[in-house]
Amino acid sequence: MAVTRRELIVGGAAGATGLVVGGVIGRTVGGGGGDGGGAGLSGSAQEIAEQRGLSQQEVAQALKTFVPPGRPELDEFLIIASGGHGGQLLVIGVPSMRLYKVIGVFTPEPWQGYGYGADWGEQILAEGTTENGTPYSAARGKITWGDAHHPALSETNGEYDGRWVYINDRANGRLGMVDLRDFKVKQIVDVPNLQTSHGGMFVTPNSEYVHISTITPTLVDYSDIENALEKFAESFRGYSTWCAIDPQTGRIDLARSFQIELPPYTQDLADAGKLVSDGWGFMNSYNSELAVGGDLEGGDPIEIGASQNDFDYLHCVNWRKAEQVLEAGKFRTINGMRVIPLEVAIEEGLLYLVPEPRSPHGVDVAPNGEYLVVAGKLDPHVTVYSFSKLMEAIEARDFEGEDRYGVPIVRYDAVVAGRVEVGAGPLHTQFDEQGHGYTSLFLESAVAKWTLGEPYFSGDEAFRLVDKLPVHYNIGHLVTMEGDTVKPAGKYLVALNKWSIDRFPVVGTLKPQSFQLVDLTGEKMELLYDMPITAAEPHYVQAIRIDRLKAWEVYPPGTNPLTMERDPNAVEEGQERIERRGNTVEVWMSVKRSHFTPDIIRAKKGDTVIIHLTNVETTPDATHGFAVPRYNINVSIDPGEVATVEFVADAEGAYAFYCTEFCSALHLEMQGWLLVS
Amino acid sequence: MAVTRRELIVGGAAGATGLVVGGVIGRTVGGGGGDGGGAGLSGSAQEIAEQRGLSQQEVAQALKTFVPPGRPELDEFLIIASGGHGGQLLVIGVPSMRLYKVIGVFTPEPWQGYGYGADWGEQILAEGTTENGTPYSAARGKITWGDAHHPALSETNGEYDGRWVYINDRANGRLGMVDLRDFKVKQIVDVPNLQTSHGGMFVTPNSEYVHISTITPTLVDYSDIENALEKFAESFRGYSTWCAIDPQTGRIDLARSFQIELPPYTQDLADAGKLVSDGWGFMNSYNSELAVGGDLEGGDPIEIGASQNDFDYLHCVNWRKAEQVLEAGKFRTINGMRVIPLEVAIEEGLLYLVPEPRSPHGVDVAPNGEYLVVAGKLDPHVTVYSFSKLMEAIEARDFEGEDRYGVPIVRYDAVVAGRVEVGAGPLHTQFDEQGHGYTSLFLESAVAKWTLGEPYFSGDEAFRLVDKLPVHYNIGHLVTMEGDTVKPAGKYLVALNKWSIDRFPVVGTLKPQSFQLVDLTGEKMELLYDMPITAAEPHYVQAIRIDRLKAWEVYPPGTNPLTMERDPNAVEEGQERIERRGNTVEVWMSVKRSHFTPDIIRAKKGDTVIIHLTNVETTPDATHGFAVPRYNINVSIDPGEVATVEFVADAEGAYAFYCTEFCSALHLEMQGWLLVS
Repeated sequence: MAVTRRELIVGGAAGATGLVVGGVIGRTVGGGGGDGGGAGLSGSAQEIAEQRGLSQQEVAQALKTFVPPGRPELDEFLIIASGGHGGQLLVIGVPSMRLYKVIGVFTPEPWQGYGYGADWGEQILAEGTTENGTPYSAARGKITWGDAHHPALSETNGEYDGRWVYINDRANGRLGMVDLRDFKVKQIVDVPNLQTSHGGMFVTPNSEYVHISTITPTLVDYSDIENALEKFAESFRGYSTWCAIDPQTGRIDLARSFQIELPPYTQDLADAGKLVSDGWGFMNSYNSELAVGGDLEGGDPIEIGASQNDFDYLHCVNWRKAEQVLEAGKFRTINGMRVIPLEVAIEEGLLYLVPEPRSPHGVDVAPNGEYLVVAGKLDPHVTVYSFSKLMEAIEARDFEGEDRYGVPIVRYDAVVAGRVEVGAGPLHTQFDEQGHGYTSLFLESAVAKWTLGEPYFSGDEAFRLVDKLPVHYNIGHLVTMEGDTVKPAGKYLVALNKWSIDRFPVVGTLKPQSFQLVDLTGEKMELLYDMPITAAEPHYVQAIRIDRLKAWEVYPPGTNPLTMERDPNAVEEGQERIERRGNTVEVWMSVKRSHFTPDIIRAKKGDTVIIHLTNVETTPDATHGFAVPRYNINVSIDPGEVATVEFVADAEGAYAFYCTEFCSALHLEMQGWLLVS
Repeated sequence: MAVTRRELIVGGAAGATGLVVGGVIGRTVGGGGGDGGGAGLSGSAQEIAEQRGLSQQEVAQALKTFVPPGRPELDEFLIIASGGHGGQLLVIGVPSMRLYKVIGVFTPEPWQGYGYGADWGEQILAEGTTENGTPYSAARGKITWGDAHHPALSETNGEYDGRWVYINDRANGRLGMVDLRDFKVKQIVDVPNLQTSHGGMFVTPNSEYVHISTITPTLVDYSDIENALEKFAESFRGYSTWCAIDPQTGRIDLARSFQIELPPYTQDLADAGKLVSDGWGFMNSYNSELAVGGDLEGGDPIEIGASQNDFDYLHCVNWRKAEQVLEAGKFRTINGMRVIPLEVAIEEGLLYLVPEPRSPHGVDVAPNGEYLVVAGKLDPHVTVYSFSKLMEAIEARDFEGEDRYGVPIVRYDAVVAGRVEVGAGPLHTQFDEQGHGYTSLFLESAVAKWTLGEPYFSGDEAFRLVDKLPVHYNIGHLVTMEGDTVKPAGKYLVALNKWSIDRFPVVGTLKPQSFQLVDLTGEKMELLYDMPITAAEPHYVQAIRIDRLKAWEVYPPGTNPLTMERDPNAVEEGQERIERRGNTVEVWMSVKRSHFTPDIIRAKKGDTVIIHLTNVETTPDATHGFAVPRYNINVSIDPGEVATVEFVADAEGAYAFYCTEFCSALHLEMQGWLLVS
């Protein structure tokens, strides 16, 4: 079961190929379990199954996942997945595994008319590209791409409340906020002092904060960049960032936010304490070796250098106490952000480290808040820490030393509650309502089901592996339904597999990733469905009960989607007009099946044209578009929505603007003329 | 059944709401038919069905569509759908209705690393934004968005050959070409003299040409733009464009291409002649009234003005004869394109008009090439023309007159083979292998199945409505398997519905469109599956048998995806290097699990940095990414692929470039440092 570090590192292509081939050879269609011998069909259903060569197990899979036409209520959950380096969020039904929405966040999304001229999107994208002290390349203009990584749903009392979802940009250290009333992005925040961020995302149990942290540490000393890597320990720092959420709007308020300076380890996955551990946050890390690579300069490759130590550090942060430290004024302001310096964090008892075995990856807090589950990808175990033991050890100053920056290291044996050998390459864990943990095994391409301790299981029943299911292939994260909240719903698990090699028809050299739906209702896990994912690496997912969502069908008439309030430039039918002031032509236009009013706009070359579009429809689904050929303008206007476009009419001609949504039988006639003379 | 023009036009929101509500109330889950009473299940399958409340018909739907995990061979067809104003192509399996790929064409697509710095994509996007005589707004920079409308698969002898697919940009009159070896775009052509294009897309039966035409006519007289609309008949023209396909590479060769000048009607849907009618192309049109709108200027709305005439014109173009006219030198060159003037086209007998009833929309050539099926959206019939009668009428000069430009109008009654009353708002027709036509009914939200004439059906059996199936809702195009080729495969139909209102969970004000899968194997059509589509309006679709495709699993080592040949800057392991020349830093980098070599790049502020990335993996699915924080660079490199990025290092700092694909257990360690000092 154990995999040596060397095998992992030098295995390279061959190693992974072996794993994949192993997976293929070893796979049992549908995984373990099955429904025994009693699944016989009769009549024409039986004929269909025979004709298509479906086994009894496959028939069961079909019947467990199929959501028939016209019966949307049979989807019980929505999973909200990051769209990876697509920069978006994906919204998918469970168990149908149908994709219901792609939400544009960091990357322009033309279906929603996001980033192609409409004011709300232009404003969000521009705000997401401030400098905020982190240099970026102004010469390349605004950033039009992000790597959406860890969605974090808002919570009330540790349960999802269906109001907002946050998502970080792994590439550029930014944070996006989506309102679940209209499933549209409202804000991108360029978080100060972060260049990149990975898994350090969570919302606290009452949505006080969304946490985001550095992955690769940030350069803080610009005096000698050329030699910065040689002085890594001094020149770089990590930042645990607590972005304050406005309780009314869900927007991030940077003025109320703060950071805690961290050592320049590579801080990574994180989770919020909950119930007993509410007020704390937990973050693991790797590369306590501070390796920087330099393979053509005589150095070790990073993956070798960063895998030397037997332990890295779980970071335990007391954010509620940090609020008091801030109130006492013990912070510095760096690039507009209040930062509690590392020495203050140590002195005030805000930060403790706990040893984590071998290349730790995931840290996940169990539903009761008592257990902190850490998986080390070079260690076949999950290690379960006890929060109450952690508190006792901190109280008793039961430390095994401190790191090079003086951060106390809590004694490992004092805080471990249990260890479970789950298999090769464990990464992430989620939970069900009965006290089981489900851990993804990357190297083994499997999911392990195991038991927690008291109050769920005791004695020999506790901390025990109880089931394992092969997945296809190279699983990263996984999700159980509401499985990172205080009240998991169990029922289904979705495995987020990175490779799909032989699972789908061959559509070229770039293969989809794969979401596999797993049935958790039986004693043994059963594979149900393979869903291809074609929007980059959907890194992480959360799953919410559909009935927690209260999405809008239409906007109240005249709504600006950025403010979610009435737009001052909304028009009603009959109020449409064109006004010219100097070199500006301003148009108040209504949009309705099958007409733009006005339908002719006359401008002089060089004029600034401003068009306020109001979709005056009140019927759900009566979305219209507004596209101007050759001007790269594409606006989407839902019923009740108002959007404004502004551009310089810098090329002569007659441009046939048109509706991009097939809105009615006379949709093709829904066009007009922009004359630039 | 008949719908008045007035109802259509002024019905507006209320009218369509009524239709939708009617649809909802009237819907029968699964449509007509069903499997009678013999579909009972026994054992645990029965229990599952009961537990989930699945009817016998729903069980049959599940079993007919389910593609079990690990059995990709049960998908028989791929449908290639336009991604509408998303600007992309979608690749979907049938019957699983799983989305397997999103192909970036007109809009940057980050999953494929298309349009975020990699040389091949930058080059394609730049080439797609030439001026080519059609003015565009240079001030807004290159066009980064398109409205993908009508995919057209390459053909050999009238059957799909699985080599290339073409797609037009409705917004900007452009044409994209995708190679089905790697499912990636290779070319965007900015077609001269077209500002916009809609449905005028098809490939000729041996892929000699891909046809694209104007929808809104192009302004050709720039002398008095301000009054151009008042002189519409003189100032605007349409263009039927025949883009020559290179038989080896599939690329468009503009030097061998040509256009035929057309009257400034709104030319629209088009189809190629085939078998007996090979050498001809057919294109319908509307707005022979030349309405231009002007609602705030005292004019009629366009949709009123464009609906006055009882007939518009089917355009019949003899492209094979046009080749001879070109050889004889009877063309003008306009903006680099050979154009046959309208008067020459008339004189040489290249262009004939045939009256089409009331707001014609689709024209579709039946598999035998003899029948041309036209649907008028304000007429409840499909009108079927006979190609052989058309030839006889032209030969006999059996004309009922000519239009205002002198184009002969063939006598309507001389060429009609039959008319079938199919229902309200007929749009598009496809065919099965048994001589049936399937026509979409927008206003009725239904599909009509009807019979063709000889040799398929004769006497009372011919030209008869035989079945109708409700769809949900507002169907535009539809597709039967290979249903626009000389050998349709029948079996399934997919309805492309524009509204989905109550069919899926509510995920905000913008609703998915819906693809409904329909079973054609029985006498009556049966609804099987609702697939939500979340990538804008997938306007049109073609469906190809999977076994016709020969897609690559990996690239031959060192392949440049633009040329599909070895890239001169490909490296093998051990050849990696960095060279500095003046202010240029050039890097030849290998990429392999889990390392970039070199992993440190040192530049001075202002340097031009060029990085050639070679993915040296040979394992299918071992794709890597390369992202540079804050530099908006995101490259995706499949196994064997080479890509180059070039940028100016214009901001100081230490940038942690990284792999965006979760490629191995040590993926997070796959990073390096760009130092800009």
